[in-house]
Amino acid sequence: MSWQAIGIFDSGVGGLTVLRELTKALPQEDTIYFGDTARVPYGTKSPDTVIRYSQEIASFLIKRDIKLLVVACNTASAVALPTLRRSLPVPVVGVIEPGAKRAAEVTRSGVVGVIGTSGTIRSSAYSRAIKRLNPDISVLAKPCPLFVPLAEEGWIDNDVTRITARLYLEELREAQVDTLVLGCTHYPLLKKVIAEVMGPDVTLVDSAEETARTVATILQEKSMLRPPAELGNHHYYVTDVPAGFIRVGNRFLGGKLGDVYQVSLDDCRLSTEKD
Amino acid sequence: MSWQAIGIFDSGVGGLTVLRELTKALPQEDTIYFGDTARVPYGTKSPDTVIRYSQEIASFLIKRDIKLLVVACNTASAVALPTLRRSLPVPVVGVIEPGAKRAAEVTRSGVVGVIGTSGTIRSSAYSRAIKRLNPDISVLAKPCPLFVPLAEEGWIDNDVTRITARLYLEELREAQVDTLVLGCTHYPLLKKVIAEVMGPDVTLVDSAEETARTVATILQEKSMLRPPAELGNHHYYVTDVPAGFIRVGNRFLGGKLGDVYQVSLDDCRLSTEKD
Repeated sequence: MSWQAIGIFDSGVGGLTVLRELTKALPQEDTIYFGDTARVPYGTKSPDTVIRYSQEIASFLIKRDIKLLVVACNTASAVALPTLRRSLPVPVVGVIEPGAKRAAEVTRSGVVGVIGTSGTIRSSAYSRAIKRLNPDISVLAKPCPLFVPLAEEGWIDNDVTRITARLYLEELREAQVDTLVLGCTHYPLLKKVIAEVMGPDVTLVDSAEETARTVATILQEKSMLRPPAELGNHHYYVTDVPAGFIRVGNRFLGGKLGDVYQVSLDDCRLSTEKD
Repeated sequence: MSWQAIGIFDSGVGGLTVLRELTKALPQEDTIYFGDTARVPYGTKSPDTVIRYSQEIASFLIKRDIKLLVVACNTASAVALPTLRRSLPVPVVGVIEPGAKRAAEVTRSGVVGVIGTSGTIRSSAYSRAIKRLNPDISVLAKPCPLFVPLAEEGWIDNDVTRITARLYLEELREAQVDTLVLGCTHYPLLKKVIAEVMGPDVTLVDSAEETARTVATILQEKSMLRPPAELGNHHYYVTDVPAGFIRVGNRFLGGKLGDVYQVSLDDCRLSTEKD
């Protein structure tokens, strides 16, 4: 049983920040990463569509006999987790709860900011998760839809990004949050500019590390960890041609990306729901 | 035969700028618009994926007995047109050739600029189309990937958009283009800022009008126009839930959007190509 891989999926390449922390914490584990690059991004799409996509990907990974599923996409974690937990035979770990837990532990003032895609923020998933842990914490959430295209354009430290960050983060600064959750896997790439705009007294919370810790705890409790002497293998599946994923992914993982396979949505038929 | 509708598709809501010109030129025609909102954007995706999506949508529209297909998406026009023309039983009109034709007619200096998504620019489709018309014209093409998210964020006239436009358009200004093709259906929304950055001596070419004229010419030649006394009906299909499309679409069409139906990709199975 413990020789099964950990499955992990994201709408694209962003979830590799979570995979990186996972392989740091558990180098002995095999992983299967799925990036839905043909349908990225999820952040601007409706909950119904994101749930449907997540189920399709989860089925694909379950057929590959994974022992645990990590939903590395904030949008999918925000809207699809209950559905996936109900329907899958393995533990499902999202990135929202670990990020929320860390924020609740770290804040001293009790005023926490959360930034993410429109889909993640609209779902209120971070606010609810933080308030479940401590109802006295005030949570201010702000969508920053331009941060993903800016990060993908490689404009991680120029005037456009700085002015955009100032416009988006102004309210959070005025509200004097002391903790800011980077509620999207791309945002750590803009950490420098975000930290500069928020100032030195604000702690930035990146969910990836805490998510890796949660996975380690669950597998340990279930005695499903591989022996630490082993070294895990890593496989990657994407839905668009792999070139773009390989280029950006190697930047994310420091050139250590393994084989990437393309998966296609075959036999798709368009049918009308309301016709 | 002439009572058949005109089919028109785009990756999302942007193609409504083309539909608007089409209904202005041919108010008597029925139209069926398809926006692939669950998989938008196409501009960052590979040619193979965009061709596959275009074929799926074209099949859907052909089953609805259209008499002509307008590919209102620049990315799909750039990469999928030959495939669609080979496989479909109706005339297929893209937005690239009409835009290229207009640019070749309008330029006096013989130096033309083209801006679009990464996919459109990488395809060199505009450059090839312009050079087919007049090999003496120099074409400078520049991808502007942040323009679509800026337009969708509604930042059509602020500092971020202005600085972004200056960064993207600098090379084209230095090269002294006298004509600039807006090679993406979203870009007309940023026309004011783009015109300001390029200066009064540069003519901006928007493909939508010329595309509508091409459609009118083809239908007239084939005697497939409806009698001018009629008033056309307009139907809309989208792949994500319609709310976002309806909101933005009404802005594009001045509140005149008709019924929008959601279409789902049912019975999709993920299968591996290289496993």
